[in-house]
Amino acid sequence: MNKSPNLQVCLSPDLFHLFSDRKSTVVVVDVLRATSSMCLAIENGIDEIIPVSTVEEALEYKNGKDFILAAERNGQMVKGFDFGNSPQQYQNTEELEGRTLVMTTTNGTKMINIAKEDHEVVIGSFLNITALVEWLTEKGKDVIICCSGWKGRFCLEDTLFAGALSAKLMGEGFHSDCDSVLASGRLYNASKKDLFQSLEDSSHRKRLSNLSTNDDVQLCLAHDLTTVIPVLQGNSLVADSKQSIVTK
Amino acid sequence: MNKSPNLQVCLSPDLFHLFSDRKSTVVVVDVLRATSSMCLAIENGIDEIIPVSTVEEALEYKNGKDFILAAERNGQMVKGFDFGNSPQQYQNTEELEGRTLVMTTTNGTKMINIAKEDHEVVIGSFLNITALVEWLTEKGKDVIICCSGWKGRFCLEDTLFAGALSAKLMGEGFHSDCDSVLASGRLYNASKKDLFQSLEDSSHRKRLSNLSTNDDVQLCLAHDLTTVIPVLQGNSLVADSKQSIVTK
Repeated sequence: MNKSPNLQVCLSPDLFHLFSDRKSTVVVVDVLRATSSMCLAIENGIDEIIPVSTVEEALEYKNGKDFILAAERNGQMVKGFDFGNSPQQYQNTEELEGRTLVMTTTNGTKMINIAKEDHEVVIGSFLNITALVEWLTEKGKDVIICCSGWKGRFCLEDTLFAGALSAKLMGEGFHSDCDSVLASGRLYNASKKDLFQSLEDSSHRKRLSNLSTNDDVQLCLAHDLTTVIPVLQGNSLVADSKQSIVTK
Repeated sequence: MNKSPNLQVCLSPDLFHLFSDRKSTVVVVDVLRATSSMCLAIENGIDEIIPVSTVEEALEYKNGKDFILAAERNGQMVKGFDFGNSPQQYQNTEELEGRTLVMTTTNGTKMINIAKEDHEVVIGSFLNITALVEWLTEKGKDVIICCSGWKGRFCLEDTLFAGALSAKLMGEGFHSDCDSVLASGRLYNASKKDLFQSLEDSSHRKRLSNLSTNDDVQLCLAHDLTTVIPVLQGNSLVADSKQSIVTK
């Protein structure tokens, strides 16, 4: 019997029904830019993140003084909100310390809310990839890496991250018979020398081809700027860490 | 205004709802082995193919003398049928001449029946790839290459074919802003020197790892053994050809 944990990659939220098994840990990936911003926000002082599916739900928190409200649709900050999903906004530690971030984005928060019904949910991005590999390996549970995509469609950047994470987990003894693991790993290998360049022709870069977004993309492709693992507890993402597993 | 036709790749039947536009030509791909067998069957004398979704539907044709019944489930010929989806069975010209093939397979016939509601459907495989490129280019309509996958999941072999076909169509002036076109093209480029080897770790090869299947795989990866384009007319796939477009 093979006791090494199983690894799968789900390339779109619209395929998640084929993977849901009520036992695997789900790594939600929305590299550009939701899950990168989440990692930075918690690393830089946010106490918890409440991911909500709609702008209306986010607005219900409007007058709470401890809340920061963030909303992105179609790549842009929604009118009336102070934050979008630009990771650069979550590098200001003073404003974030001890507050709660209520966040809705086009794809990432949708994927979280689909997965959370029956699965443990953890947030992944290049920014926390090494810490995440250690955390998942130590837990030893089966893993499904779930790409948030773009409105249900396959997207290149999340798949490249899935490939990077898969390669590291397979190196730690995970096993897989999933073609999406193979394909994402091969795509990552072909691109890892210059991830930014490899996304030049991607649909995301074509949609949002202005300078500030390029700065965001560069930041989102940086490895290991954070060590905290955002995990979903109830309806909130909070910091977990490798150490905290031991005490559970 | 860009008048070059648009190209998209849909990686799974379960994502087709995101692509359906009631105007594009759909290329259905099930390289291992349904659409490869269909190309060979029509090239070698079959008059028409009736793709049906269930074994029960196929059995309704059982006592017609002009019918050949073929059924595959989970990679194997269904008990009580004379044909499965092995392409080697469709290289015998005498038995096929002038007859109608009723066929049901795990994935390919399902994809056909999803797409046919609102779209022109044509069958693609490595066996007819060059003829197909000419046919699609001459028509000049938007194209969605639809991978049949495995029970809704992404599969490597169909994606590699989608990449091969995409690369050729882009070379003929098609345009695309679809990340699945980019990714499948890159995967194909990384594998084209030895497609058989590149599928060694794929889930399909792991499921069906016996010698006769390897012969099937080799045959399905051969390029341009056929020139006929199977197109859906009503509920039947019949031969079309580049020439016939001119008279329509």
